[in-house]
Amino acid sequence: MFESVTVIGSGRAGTAIAARLTQRGVRMREGGELRLLCVPDRAIAEVARGIEPGPWVAHVSGATPLAALEPHARRFSVHPLQTLVLGRGPEQLDGAWGGVTAASEEARARGLWLAEKLGLRPFALRDDKRALYHAGASFASAFLVTLYRAAGRLLGEASVPAEVLVPLMQRTIENGFELTGPITRGDWQTVERHVDAIRSEVPELEPLYRVLSEATAP
Amino acid sequence: MFESVTVIGSGRAGTAIAARLTQRGVRMREGGELRLLCVPDRAIAEVARGIEPGPWVAHVSGATPLAALEPHARRFSVHPLQTLVLGRGPEQLDGAWGGVTAASEEARARGLWLAEKLGLRPFALRDDKRALYHAGASFASAFLVTLYRAAGRLLGEASVPAEVLVPLMQRTIENGFELTGPITRGDWQTVERHVDAIRSEVPELEPLYRVLSEATAP
Repeated sequence: MFESVTVIGSGRAGTAIAARLTQRGVRMREGGELRLLCVPDRAIAEVARGIEPGPWVAHVSGATPLAALEPHARRFSVHPLQTLVLGRGPEQLDGAWGGVTAASEEARARGLWLAEKLGLRPFALRDDKRALYHAGASFASAFLVTLYRAAGRLLGEASVPAEVLVPLMQRTIENGFELTGPITRGDWQTVERHVDAIRSEVPELEPLYRVLSEATAP
Repeated sequence: MFESVTVIGSGRAGTAIAARLTQRGVRMREGGELRLLCVPDRAIAEVARGIEPGPWVAHVSGATPLAALEPHARRFSVHPLQTLVLGRGPEQLDGAWGGVTAASEEARARGLWLAEKLGLRPFALRDDKRALYHAGASFASAFLVTLYRAAGRLLGEASVPAEVLVPLMQRTIENGFELTGPITRGDWQTVERHVDAIRSEVPELEPLYRVLSEATAP
């Protein structure tokens, strides 16, 4: 669908995406048929305005609406729903989902083509719901890191290394997020023990524990 | 070390543990050399008091201190740090860590024996820090379910199915909990977009988002 693509930006996303497109035989060059913006969210509008109208223009941001690609009408977006790190290659994209946003059938077909070239499983992402969707992605990834760090601090106070938590977290996901533990059992005595221990030893984590246990209770 | 064990309780833990010990050739019978309490936390003290002194007595609770096993002096505890579900068998214990608590070398040797028979990787768990440790386990498992549910609600409002989050969450763990996303990049404009979208569409999740993003920020 596109024989040549220009990837703009060489951060975590741009590096993995350019490597994957090259792997799949897409020609990477200046002035490509598709200009793919892999720049920070706040730079998208400015970079888009700097492109002479004509080629297709797309971005890979989760939260940024298509309007940021003005003045280009031939535009779409593909958001790889994955945490990407610089030490890994394009195989990071395998198995991840990709949110495709487009305002026309022609643009949608191109978005799907890109998602599939990248190795992503595409789903339709509404332009007016991107911020909500991206907030959800933060809950799933950034806040997962926060949970691990908080849990690791509590274990650290008990002289237990944080990595003992890894099989527990992986299995929680594998089990389809089935809730187990004192809150499900309605064992409020144990929950009170948790609160007392946190309050006396790591009090800065008490608000986080409280808000999370309220959100967890049925 | 123990030729016969009596597993008391047939919930999630008791069922998996009894099946694993049987698999490993340990004789399961009434009046065994070890009475292994796999009952709810609040029932441990009462069940322990009902056992005639003589045999070893142990429990598998995370938050309960050894003193709950009074009047027994030959006592210890092994906590499988895993989420256990009824639909699965003893293979659930494989690869998980197990917290061993004991007040004497003799008891510790028996706790290690049990952890290893169960297929757990043992670590030492201090009796006076169990509540803190167990609160950490809640962060890692119950609250992980809470994150997924919250994220799923936000995605649901955007007509995106929650399961697209699974590869993202798995990779976040595989990547050693490396933090990526707008908070790491100091992209507060995107964070503000998240807050606005949550406030206008799923306001009950705003406090959770706020507490978690404050805990995440460097």
